[in-house]
Amino acid sequence: MKLIILAGGSGTRLFPLSRSCYPKQFLKIAGQKSLLQQTVERFARLVKAEDILIVTNKDYIFHVQADLAEIGAEAAHIITEPVARNTAPAIALAVAYCKDKMECEANECLFVSPADHVINPVEDFQKVVEAAEAICKNSDNIVTLGVNPTKPETGYGYIHAEAEMVGEGFKVESFKEKPDLATAEQYLAQGGYYWNAGMFAFSVQTMEKALKNLASDVYDISSLGYEHALDRFEDMPNISIDYAVAEKTKNIVVVPMGTVNWNDVGSFDAIDEVLQTENGNVISGDVITTDSKNNMILGSNRLVSTIGVDNLIVVDTPDVLLISGKGKSQDVKKVVEKLKAQKRKEISENVTMYRPWGSYTILAEGDGFKVKKITVNPGAKLSLQMHYHRSEHWTVISGTGKLTLDDKVVIFKENESTYIPIAVKHRLQNPGSIPLSIIEVQNGRYLGEDDIVRFDDVYGRSID
Amino acid sequence: MKLIILAGGSGTRLFPLSRSCYPKQFLKIAGQKSLLQQTVERFARLVKAEDILIVTNKDYIFHVQADLAEIGAEAAHIITEPVARNTAPAIALAVAYCKDKMECEANECLFVSPADHVINPVEDFQKVVEAAEAICKNSDNIVTLGVNPTKPETGYGYIHAEAEMVGEGFKVESFKEKPDLATAEQYLAQGGYYWNAGMFAFSVQTMEKALKNLASDVYDISSLGYEHALDRFEDMPNISIDYAVAEKTKNIVVVPMGTVNWNDVGSFDAIDEVLQTENGNVISGDVITTDSKNNMILGSNRLVSTIGVDNLIVVDTPDVLLISGKGKSQDVKKVVEKLKAQKRKEISENVTMYRPWGSYTILAEGDGFKVKKITVNPGAKLSLQMHYHRSEHWTVISGTGKLTLDDKVVIFKENESTYIPIAVKHRLQNPGSIPLSIIEVQNGRYLGEDDIVRFDDVYGRSID
Repeated sequence: MKLIILAGGSGTRLFPLSRSCYPKQFLKIAGQKSLLQQTVERFARLVKAEDILIVTNKDYIFHVQADLAEIGAEAAHIITEPVARNTAPAIALAVAYCKDKMECEANECLFVSPADHVINPVEDFQKVVEAAEAICKNSDNIVTLGVNPTKPETGYGYIHAEAEMVGEGFKVESFKEKPDLATAEQYLAQGGYYWNAGMFAFSVQTMEKALKNLASDVYDISSLGYEHALDRFEDMPNISIDYAVAEKTKNIVVVPMGTVNWNDVGSFDAIDEVLQTENGNVISGDVITTDSKNNMILGSNRLVSTIGVDNLIVVDTPDVLLISGKGKSQDVKKVVEKLKAQKRKEISENVTMYRPWGSYTILAEGDGFKVKKITVNPGAKLSLQMHYHRSEHWTVISGTGKLTLDDKVVIFKENESTYIPIAVKHRLQNPGSIPLSIIEVQNGRYLGEDDIVRFDDVYGRSID
Repeated sequence: MKLIILAGGSGTRLFPLSRSCYPKQFLKIAGQKSLLQQTVERFARLVKAEDILIVTNKDYIFHVQADLAEIGAEAAHIITEPVARNTAPAIALAVAYCKDKMECEANECLFVSPADHVINPVEDFQKVVEAAEAICKNSDNIVTLGVNPTKPETGYGYIHAEAEMVGEGFKVESFKEKPDLATAEQYLAQGGYYWNAGMFAFSVQTMEKALKNLASDVYDISSLGYEHALDRFEDMPNISIDYAVAEKTKNIVVVPMGTVNWNDVGSFDAIDEVLQTENGNVISGDVITTDSKNNMILGSNRLVSTIGVDNLIVVDTPDVLLISGKGKSQDVKKVVEKLKAQKRKEISENVTMYRPWGSYTILAEGDGFKVKKITVNPGAKLSLQMHYHRSEHWTVISGTGKLTLDDKVVIFKENESTYIPIAVKHRLQNPGSIPLSIIEVQNGRYLGEDDIVRFDDVYGRSID
C-alpha cells in the first residue's frame, strides 16, 4: 500500500494560529507534533516513509520538509502543485506519480488521507485502514471511511450505507450534503449514516478507470503521465474527488470507523473538544486563572491572567489576540473577512516567517528602522541578494556565519558584527553544524520585504 | 494658596497597566494626559506652577519631572520622600517645605490633593476648592471635601456632617470606616454622609497646631524645619493624616462637592465607569469586535479581536494580558499576590523602563543575548559604567550619539554602529537636539540588569 497525504490546504479557520503562510496542517496543536507529523505517524505501522507521497503547494514545501525531517521521515516523496486546485486533480496527479516514480503496479492499493485531522486511538484506526485495503485489493471498489456520528452535526456531509456488505464495509447508497438539524437528527436516529471524513482507498487501476469514465477532463491530463500532467496541471478543473468520482460511481464502499474518534479540527471549539480535560480549563503556555472555569486558553510568549471568566476561548499570538465565546469560534471567518477587506498583513504573515534556509522574527519596526532575529539552519545559505533602500547591521548571537560581500568572503562569529551597505551584493551562509542566529538592524527610508534583488533562488541556487 | 499633591503611591490595583515601577498616577487613562498631569491642570486657574509642591518618592522623581515638562509646569516644586511613609509625615514635611522654601506665611492656605483621581467638571470643582479656601482663611478649621454618594459604596470611608454650617461647609460629626452594605444604604437614605476623598485644606498654623496637639511624634520631627525633617523622615510613624489628625480634631469642616463627579480609579471597573460610552463597548487601541457588547478593551501593540463576548474587561500589555469579568476586577490583587509569591518581574517592571535620561525597551532575550531599543533624551547622558559579563553592540537608528569608551570619545550617527567590550568603562550621551535611538545587542553568559558598575549616579553626576 502507498499513502497519499493531501497537505496543500491554506485555510484560516484557526486564525490567528493559522495564517495563509502557515496553515493548519503544520500547527502543533493536540500534541508536540504537527497535524501533518501526526498523520504520517498514524500510518507508521502500515507504510514505510518511502511509500508515502505528500501532495502540497510550493509555498509550503519547506514546512513539509522540516516536519518530515523532525520525525525521521525524509524518505517520503513530495510533489508540489504549481497552482491550488481541488482534491480530484491532486489525487489524479498523485496516482500518476505513484505509477511513474514509485513503481506502483495496477493493482497496488493507494490510501488517501487529509493532513490536518486528529484521529485516535491509532491502533483501532489502523485496523480500519487494513479493512479498507483488503476491500480494494479484493474488489474493484473505491473505499471511503465513514465516521460513526456522535451528534446531529450539521457541519459535515454524510454517507448513507446500504445493507449489502463488501468485506467489512457496506455498499454506499448515496452521499448527502450538509443537512439541516432536523435531517441530521433523523440520520442519527435512523442509523446507517456516517460522516464523510475525506479518506479514500483504491487500486491504481480502479481510480484510473473511474476518472476515465466519470471525470474525463481530469483523466485526459493525468493520463499523460506525471511530468506532462504536472506541466498542464493548471488546465485541470477545480473539482473535488467527491463530486468528480465518489458521488457518481456505483462501485464505492464505506467502512465504518466504529469506536475510532475523529475530529477535523475545523474550529477552536473543535480543538477544545480534542483537548478537553477534567478540570474544565484547557490551558497551554504561561497562564494564571482566578475564579475561571471551562475556558480554553492557548498562550504564547506573554503571561495571560484571567479573573472570573467562564466558557471563553483565548488564543494569544505575538501579533494577534483572539477572545471568543465557546460555540462562537466558527465566526473567526468574519474576523478574517474584515482583515482581508482592510488588506492587513496579519492574515498572511506571522511575526516569525519560515524560509527554506531557516526563519526570521520581526522584533521591532518603526520610522526608518526594522530589527529582526534571523536563524539559519546548519549548512544552509540565503540567496545572493542586494537591497536598494536599506543597509543592514548584523550581530551574531550564536553560531558562526559566512558572509559573501561583493567579492570578499568573511567568517564572523558569536559577539562579532558586520555591516552590509546599500546596493552591495551579499549572501549569508551557515557553514557550521549548529544553527546560526543573528540580530539584524535595518536602516533605510523604505524597508519593505520586496526591496530585494535575488541573484539566485530561495534555496541559494543560481538563477543568473 | 499653595497646592500640595501627594504623588508617592505605588499601588498595583491597575496591574498590568500599573507596576511598582510605574504606578497609577503616571498612567494616561481617561484622557491624553496622566492622572498627575490632570491633577495639576485641575488647579491651573487657582495656583501658578511655582505655587505647587509635589511630594513623591525617589524612584518616581523623573516620571514627575517628565510629566511636568510635558504640560509646561516645570516651575512646580518637588520633594522626594527618602522612604515610603503615610500621608501624615508626607503632609508635615510638605508644610515644613512651604514655610522654609516657599515663603509661606502662617495664615497661608495649603490645599492637599491625591495625584491619581478623576474629577469633573473642573469648573465646578474649582468653586468647591475656593469655598474650602475661604473657610480655612476665615477660621482655624481644617477643611476636607466630601463627595456626595451616588450609591451605597462599601469601598470608601464616610464623613458624617452635623447641621451646623461654617461658610459653605458643615462641621464634621465623625469619620466612618468602610461600612457594610446595610450601613452604606442607611447612610445614603439618611443623608449628611459623604465619601472621604482624601482632600484637605488648612492654613499653615492650623495644621502645625493640630500636629503639635494630636500627633506629637510627627510634629517633633517636622517642627525641626524642612532639612532636618527630611534627614529624620524615616523616624516618622507610618500613619495617615486621617488617623493622626482629621478623626481626632474638633475643628474640622466638610465641604460637599455637590454635583462634581469624583472617581478614585481604584479598579478597572472604575475606569470603565469613567470611560463608559453609549454603544456599550469601551475600546482603545487596535480592536475588532464581532457580536460583542458592553466590554472594556484597552489594547496595546497588537490586534485584539473578540467574537461573541459580553461584559469583559480586557487589558493588553506587551508582556501581560488580563481578562476579567466586569465587577471582578478588584481581584487583580489576587493575581498580583500570586505573581509576588512567584517573585515574577512583571510586578515591578515593564517591558519599557523609564530612566532619568530616557527609556529602554527589551525587544528580545534568550540564551546568551538580549536586544534593547534605547532612547536618550536630547542633551541627556547615561552614567559612566562598565559590565563584567556582557559586551554590547550599538547601532544608531535615529539621532547622533556621543560615546566615551575608556579615554576615547567618538561621535556616531544614524546607520553607524559601535562595540563596547567587556569590562571597559563607557558612557552614552545624546549631544543633539532630537532623541537618540539605538538598538543594543548584548552578548554574554550573564545579562542581568545588576551587572553594572556605575562611576556616577543615574543623572550622570560623578560619584567617584
